[in-house]
Amino acid sequence: MLILGIDPGLRITGFGVIRKEGHRLGYVASGTIRTADGSLPERLKTILAGVSEVVRTYGPDCAAIEKVFVNVNPQSTLLLGQARGAAICGLVDNGLAVSEYTALQIKQAVVGHGRAAKQQMQDMVQRLLLLPGLPGPDAADALGVAICHAHSGQLLGELDALAPGLSRRGVRHRGGRLVG
Amino acid sequence: MLILGIDPGLRITGFGVIRKEGHRLGYVASGTIRTADGSLPERLKTILAGVSEVVRTYGPDCAAIEKVFVNVNPQSTLLLGQARGAAICGLVDNGLAVSEYTALQIKQAVVGHGRAAKQQMQDMVQRLLLLPGLPGPDAADALGVAICHAHSGQLLGELDALAPGLSRRGVRHRGGRLVG
Repeated sequence: MLILGIDPGLRITGFGVIRKEGHRLGYVASGTIRTADGSLPERLKTILAGVSEVVRTYGPDCAAIEKVFVNVNPQSTLLLGQARGAAICGLVDNGLAVSEYTALQIKQAVVGHGRAAKQQMQDMVQRLLLLPGLPGPDAADALGVAICHAHSGQLLGELDALAPGLSRRGVRHRGGRLVG
Repeated sequence: MLILGIDPGLRITGFGVIRKEGHRLGYVASGTIRTADGSLPERLKTILAGVSEVVRTYGPDCAAIEKVFVNVNPQSTLLLGQARGAAICGLVDNGLAVSEYTALQIKQAVVGHGRAAKQQMQDMVQRLLLLPGLPGPDAADALGVAICHAHSGQLLGELDALAPGLSRRGVRHRGGRLVG
C-alpha cells in the first residue's frame, strides 16, 4: 500500500510517499511544491497542479494531510487555509480518501512524544525509512504524516514491530492512539 | 462576455453568471452549492466539483470571487479559507482567470456605497439585472461580485450608461474606483 503525506503551506507544500508492506515501511519519494510570488489564485493553481502531478506520478492508495495551526495573524491563517484547501482539492479530485492528523499526533507517532523539535522529526524519519541522508524539514514533515497514517487506528498494533530498538520507550497505547 | 461570480463559504457557496454585451448586463444563471455535514475533505470535494460543474455548464470567460473577512473565531477563518481555496481551485482548474474583490468594493459597485445591507444588495441586483423576483442572499452576493467585475477597471466608464435612472446619485469616480 502506498501512502501519500502532505504538509501544506502557501509558499512550500511538502509531500512524501511511503510504501507499507505488512510491518515494514519503505521510502518511495518526497519533495516540495513551491509557489512563486503572484496572485493568490495563481499560487493555489500551482499547489493544485503540483499535488495532482504527485498523485498521477506515484499512484498512492490513500493520503494524509497535516491539520494546520491557527496563526496569531488572522490574515496568515486565512492564506494558509486557502493553501491547505487547494492541496486537499488536488487529493480528492483524484479520488483519494484523505485523513487528517494534528502536528501533535504526528510527532507522537514518529518521535514518541508531542514536543519534538524539527530536527528530531528529520532524524526519526531518516531512521524509520532508512534514508541515506537527512530529509529536508518540509519533506520530513510530509513523510511524518504518511508514517502517522500508516500507524493509525487498526494499524497501531504493528507499530512496535515496525522499528524495534528505536527510542520508543515510554510510549503507551491508549484507546487506539499513541500517547507520549 | 460571460462573467461568473462566486461568494465562497464552507456550507453555502453562491454562484452567479451574467452576460455583458457592450453597456448592457444580463442575467444568465445563479444558485448555490451546499455541503452536507461530513469530513472537511468531503465538503471541499463537493465545493470543487460544484464550481467545476457550474463552469462546464455555463462556459464563462472569466471569474470573480469575493475576498472573505477574517472572522473573530480563528477556527472559522481557517475553515472559510479552505472553502474559498476549493472554490478558487474549481475556477483555475478549468483555465479561468480569477479576480478578487472585497465586500466593500462589491457594495460600492452595486449599491453605490460600502455600508449596504444584504437586502439592499438583493434589491439592486434585482433591478440591475431586471430579475422577475428577489434573488436569494447568497446568489445576490455572487451576482454582485460578477457585476462588480463587469464595472471594474477600464470598464468603469460604462457604469453610468449601464443603469440610467437608478439611484447612483452621489457616486463619484476617483482613480478608477467607485467611491460612495
